[in-house]
Amino acid sequence: MAKITAIIDIGSNSVRMTVFKRTSRFGFYLLKEIKSKVRISEGAYCNNGNLQPVAVDRAICALREFLNVAKAYKATKILCVATSAVRDAPNRSDFILRAKREIGLNIKVIDGAKEAHYGAVAALNLLYVKDAITVDIGGGSTELALIRNGKIEELCSLNLGTVRLKELFFDNSLPMEQAKNFIRNELGKIPSCFKSATIIGIGGTNRAIADAIMEIERYNVESIHGYEIDLAIKREFFDRLIECKTHKLKNFKIKPERYDVIREGALIVTSIVDLVGASKIIASGSGVREGVFLSDLLRNQNTKFPQNFNPSVKSLLDRFCDNEEEILYIRKIAIDLFDVLSPIHTLDKEFARYVSIASKLVNIGTKLSFYNHRHHGFLFVLNSLEYGFSHYDRLLIAMIVKYHGRRFGGFDDDKFLVFCKHNEVIIKWLSIIITIAETINSDMSSPKVSFSYKEGVLYIQTYSDLYICKEKLKNILKEVALRVEFIRVD
Amino acid sequence: MAKITAIIDIGSNSVRMTVFKRTSRFGFYLLKEIKSKVRISEGAYCNNGNLQPVAVDRAICALREFLNVAKAYKATKILCVATSAVRDAPNRSDFILRAKREIGLNIKVIDGAKEAHYGAVAALNLLYVKDAITVDIGGGSTELALIRNGKIEELCSLNLGTVRLKELFFDNSLPMEQAKNFIRNELGKIPSCFKSATIIGIGGTNRAIADAIMEIERYNVESIHGYEIDLAIKREFFDRLIECKTHKLKNFKIKPERYDVIREGALIVTSIVDLVGASKIIASGSGVREGVFLSDLLRNQNTKFPQNFNPSVKSLLDRFCDNEEEILYIRKIAIDLFDVLSPIHTLDKEFARYVSIASKLVNIGTKLSFYNHRHHGFLFVLNSLEYGFSHYDRLLIAMIVKYHGRRFGGFDDDKFLVFCKHNEVIIKWLSIIITIAETINSDMSSPKVSFSYKEGVLYIQTYSDLYICKEKLKNILKEVALRVEFIRVD
Repeated sequence: MAKITAIIDIGSNSVRMTVFKRTSRFGFYLLKEIKSKVRISEGAYCNNGNLQPVAVDRAICALREFLNVAKAYKATKILCVATSAVRDAPNRSDFILRAKREIGLNIKVIDGAKEAHYGAVAALNLLYVKDAITVDIGGGSTELALIRNGKIEELCSLNLGTVRLKELFFDNSLPMEQAKNFIRNELGKIPSCFKSATIIGIGGTNRAIADAIMEIERYNVESIHGYEIDLAIKREFFDRLIECKTHKLKNFKIKPERYDVIREGALIVTSIVDLVGASKIIASGSGVREGVFLSDLLRNQNTKFPQNFNPSVKSLLDRFCDNEEEILYIRKIAIDLFDVLSPIHTLDKEFARYVSIASKLVNIGTKLSFYNHRHHGFLFVLNSLEYGFSHYDRLLIAMIVKYHGRRFGGFDDDKFLVFCKHNEVIIKWLSIIITIAETINSDMSSPKVSFSYKEGVLYIQTYSDLYICKEKLKNILKEVALRVEFIRVD
Repeated sequence: MAKITAIIDIGSNSVRMTVFKRTSRFGFYLLKEIKSKVRISEGAYCNNGNLQPVAVDRAICALREFLNVAKAYKATKILCVATSAVRDAPNRSDFILRAKREIGLNIKVIDGAKEAHYGAVAALNLLYVKDAITVDIGGGSTELALIRNGKIEELCSLNLGTVRLKELFFDNSLPMEQAKNFIRNELGKIPSCFKSATIIGIGGTNRAIADAIMEIERYNVESIHGYEIDLAIKREFFDRLIECKTHKLKNFKIKPERYDVIREGALIVTSIVDLVGASKIIASGSGVREGVFLSDLLRNQNTKFPQNFNPSVKSLLDRFCDNEEEILYIRKIAIDLFDVLSPIHTLDKEFARYVSIASKLVNIGTKLSFYNHRHHGFLFVLNSLEYGFSHYDRLLIAMIVKYHGRRFGGFDDDKFLVFCKHNEVIIKWLSIIITIAETINSDMSSPKVSFSYKEGVLYIQTYSDLYICKEKLKNILKEVALRVEFIRVD
């Protein structure tokens, strides 16, 4: 597997390239994203799907420069897929040959089912749900995949896209009812098994809507990936958006570059929501390009990461952790402590998972600066623990990183105070547990210890002085209803 | 030079170790700091300076664990210096031999002049002033160095320290006047050439006071290093602190672990301020340990970094930048643009320095996450561009990083809005200049270009399409009084 891989996706609206960097066998992160609003489908829908010369010229220009970028990153693998507009074009081979001849790019045209499959691969591996329908709305087509119990069960592709709707109906000022009829007709092709409470929203339209709602709500986690839209509350936002005049889109916090096709997109979303009976949309920052990348990365793995492997945790550690031995020790001790202290923290066993992940990440902030490293670690986790975690998970782990390692004296967050108050007991105890584990390892010698707990006292059996540990712990455990006693064994 | 170096400093109050990691020949950052409040001087001042057995035991315990930490980091060089309490102790050789025998540590006792020298080396190389007096207040002694025109001119060491004052006067409840007499007597040893408007405050006392004032002022740059205390305004804070009862120190935002010696420290500071005629204290996060480290690192360099070299910029790039060619190009283009556009931005030539540094750092945030990378870059710069820059410099560069690369539509900072408004023209133009430079390199091919400017129009002479550049620039330069025209040369 190449260390740097560039994936290009020639959509009907935009051409995009994502550059991924592998940091270890399965650890990776997104290095660069670049797009050009080529709109290769321009004029095609009124010309029997044929790509128009001006649009093809634009695509070649943009792709040539994309390849320069890939070269600058020393990408050793470049995979390029083309979707709806190109696959529907009777004259597609002219374009493909020209790309090959003029810029040396191999374009692979994928059918709708494959496109739906890639979206589902991304969602399954990079989000955190096992039952959902992925909905990837593009300029020319919309792809759906039914995921049940962690498996991709059905795929479906519709000739329904934002640019297509715009050019066929909105640009010609045809009545909304005609557009709705067209949509209804296309939706009829969706198999009846496509029913789910959860939609995973992929593609530019879904991202733009999530982004807008997040801004209106002044939502504080600055990440679209994993943002959940509760339709019981937000459905009317979609309806008002569809009917909105262009000059008022600003009030909906839609970005200007999306003005031209956002209403078409919202109309497609709501139509599908109604059909499949969804009550929630989870926005996905990942889509076809991630799906192509993962299908290549995990080609000998049945397109799945190894069990208990998380690519974000791994790549954060690869990038920012210099001392693996330390984190293995802290994690082991912290998990022991979580068990031993269960009578006092009374948290459900499932929270051991957070102890395990947070204890790996507690010190990644030191790569930026030792001072305030807990706060940096908090930001690192919040911004970069992206794949496989809900926003709740990310925030909780980020808070544990932030509040560990010092006396717990309440929260100093302005932005996330409500979240912290709601989860006070969890954040407090999990950070205290990790703090004790880390403090036991103050001299970083991974000392042998064992624990027992009785009536408010944690007994730590030790085989060495733990001099600095004792000095620190005295201070840290003030104001906590837990005493520590050391039993020295020689 | 070792890649990981640990420096231990056995002070009268605390024993501390700092672990530095070199990222390239002269690039380095602080990996770890650990301290134990051993107070090796305890009981010594009332016993003719002799180190007491209990205190020595504590020191050996702490140092043993420090060495474990150094080992865990695979430090290949460990340098240990001991200052006032040990050098004054008639029985110091017992301690030194014991450390050698029991834990294999070589302790080098340094005299007061050497100690003052190390503080000055740190200040000269890691702060940004060429004329100042460094004042390093310790538990047993206080060291001063006179720096003039970037050179260390005079050194001076006084038997005046916080623990010493505490044990000799405060613990015995002797009248304040006796302590002041003692101080006056010691200050008499300072050569009369020690006059300066600027004091650089080194050591725990100075850090604790800066920290307290920053908290009271709700100061937003979370970094003591480089924080400036204007004595015209803050002098009375010191005076009130000296007279304050212990139970009220909390109101002064002094941390509990400093309660015991903070008044003694403040008394020493103000006495020296008055004597040398200082109007400003610049807090230094660096001191003797950094001085020892730098003296070793720069031993063939006359204890100076190469000209125009900055260790923070270099180590940020070493840690977080993967594409050196890109930043060299952007920097060159940005500096050209700064010159060509001088009729429109009208900024002084000195600001070219910020263009040069900011353009190197614009993309370091992508190492954390491509999305929001400008905001991450902002935080990276603010927290880690520590050495050699004032807080003003850091904030300005951080803001340029934050606001570059997109349409400039005003500031969205809550915390730093006042700063931004004050520096609006600078931030706006320098970020626009870097944005244009970066956008020209959209395809990362470092395209050949040249510039001219006339009446509100920037003419860019190009030899290639710059297709993506043109697409982006159109959007970015909206709302700026600058048009761009491309002249294609074949």
